[in-house]
Amino acid sequence: MIKALITTVPFGKMDTRPLKLLNDANIEYVLNPHKKRLTESQLMELVDDIDVIIAGTEPITDKVMAKAPKLKLISRVGVGLDGVDLVAAKRRNIEVSYTAEAPAAAVAELTLGLMLALLRSVHIANAELHRKGWRRIFGRRISEVSVGIIGGGRIGRRVIQLLFSLGTPRIMLSDLNPRPELAQEFGVEQVAKEIIYNEADIISLHIPLTGMTKNMIQHDQLQRMKPDALIINTSRGGIINEDALYDTLMAGHLGGAAVDVYEQEPYEGKLAEIERCLLTAHMGSMTEDCRAKMETEASEEAVRFSLGKPLKNSVPKEEYALQDRYS
Amino acid sequence: MIKALITTVPFGKMDTRPLKLLNDANIEYVLNPHKKRLTESQLMELVDDIDVIIAGTEPITDKVMAKAPKLKLISRVGVGLDGVDLVAAKRRNIEVSYTAEAPAAAVAELTLGLMLALLRSVHIANAELHRKGWRRIFGRRISEVSVGIIGGGRIGRRVIQLLFSLGTPRIMLSDLNPRPELAQEFGVEQVAKEIIYNEADIISLHIPLTGMTKNMIQHDQLQRMKPDALIINTSRGGIINEDALYDTLMAGHLGGAAVDVYEQEPYEGKLAEIERCLLTAHMGSMTEDCRAKMETEASEEAVRFSLGKPLKNSVPKEEYALQDRYS
Repeated sequence: MIKALITTVPFGKMDTRPLKLLNDANIEYVLNPHKKRLTESQLMELVDDIDVIIAGTEPITDKVMAKAPKLKLISRVGVGLDGVDLVAAKRRNIEVSYTAEAPAAAVAELTLGLMLALLRSVHIANAELHRKGWRRIFGRRISEVSVGIIGGGRIGRRVIQLLFSLGTPRIMLSDLNPRPELAQEFGVEQVAKEIIYNEADIISLHIPLTGMTKNMIQHDQLQRMKPDALIINTSRGGIINEDALYDTLMAGHLGGAAVDVYEQEPYEGKLAEIERCLLTAHMGSMTEDCRAKMETEASEEAVRFSLGKPLKNSVPKEEYALQDRYS
Repeated sequence: MIKALITTVPFGKMDTRPLKLLNDANIEYVLNPHKKRLTESQLMELVDDIDVIIAGTEPITDKVMAKAPKLKLISRVGVGLDGVDLVAAKRRNIEVSYTAEAPAAAVAELTLGLMLALLRSVHIANAELHRKGWRRIFGRRISEVSVGIIGGGRIGRRVIQLLFSLGTPRIMLSDLNPRPELAQEFGVEQVAKEIIYNEADIISLHIPLTGMTKNMIQHDQLQRMKPDALIINTSRGGIINEDALYDTLMAGHLGGAAVDVYEQEPYEGKLAEIERCLLTAHMGSMTEDCRAKMETEASEEAVRFSLGKPLKNSVPKEEYALQDRYS
């Protein structure tokens, strides 16, 4: 009998179908007993008889794999692979799959919501009114500003599409790959990151966390941005250096920031001291439909594995190459 | 020499052109000395030698007009006329103009931003994180829900257009007038208000405050809404009864509410006790471009008046009829 550890939380809560899929396939499963993102050492204690991890963003390192002699599949609920040591997994013949498309629509819509909230200082007015204060704050419209998107993959291109449909006059994109289709369809200007830092009113990140992107945005990059620029990170914590963002905002530079992802989650850090920093709790993919889709797709991979069938959403070679080169 | 009282605050702050227009036309002006929305009695003390009021939302009643023997023009910065006693103004031969189109784009975008924030509980997560807590909350996407718009005028139709462009699958509209063009262009279903109360996931108001719409949404109407429905008011305070909304939310009914407008402004009421009630400070029209346009258009009317030219944005007869019938 196959045994699965489900580390991501919540799981099977909005929709019980993913758990039913596992039950029907006679897969025994254990839910994350800590009910929050596991540390490496917590994970090491849970994996000794596990065949499959239905995984969140926790660190599945070579050390964890060494404690899991039966592990044959890591089925990620979601798309980021920064938690998984792909090189070690490959060496140990552990397959890795992910649900690459499922979270994209939900993350893109949250990003748009954060942009509109920042532009109109909704979070600041709300905090003030809940203290029984009253502060009318001027804003800007999305159809008046320049937006710079860093990363034109599954999520970035959806954000671009939303911005285009709302009439954003200038959309810039920085991407390692040429994206001529985005230029053609949405009038996107593909530019160097530096142009975005210098010229965008709103900057939004849609790239994976790798050795190359870690701390990509530091003091220097933040200083180059317009004094009233707004920066949004719904991708992965650590790409914007949190200390640098804190210092920059505290010094009065930048109009505001919205952060959904953190170096350490749950986040308890000092960005909470800054009112114009809008904070959400890694909720990009947390819509009922997207989450159900992600959990179902990840469970289906576990079922395929248990039946000896080929996987459907194996992580492609490029992801291995990316991690091998930069980590 | 013409003397103008500018009651709306702020004025000429983002863009000084409106004040320059008045100066160039040799109009003497006084800015609101209280720097917030005037009460009837405050206003009565400021108008005795005033020819023109460049007006906000304060009550310009028959009593106020009786204290203003020289008053010949009320030039509203904005669109709502609930503050102006049109019947009394007509009887006293005081002309009234407004800037009907200028705020629409800004109000519509704020409304969309509030919808996205409510759908994803951005305000609740943000409050929790600023208390150094962590709460991941499930949401829904705008492309999964039914939205009911009450009022298909200048602002309502822009909200409909935004929703349509984001892929909202069902948009309902309640309006006194038939709006076949909205059905045709955006697939809007024109329905009775009761259908919206019963069936919409999000309900948004875009109607003027009149005798007919005051307290239009009371306990009964709120109770009929879905348990997780979201209600948004960026139109005028008093259309949703605030006590009824408070009681309903406190009793656990409705998913949340976003309120930008209040019976009394500045607002200091008890909705502030409810975290899932997102509160902003009458900021619908508060974008730099829209506000500058409103202030400029209202000042231009004062200049036309001072030069004896005909007004360009006189309030149309329908508005007088509406107030006469229902107030």
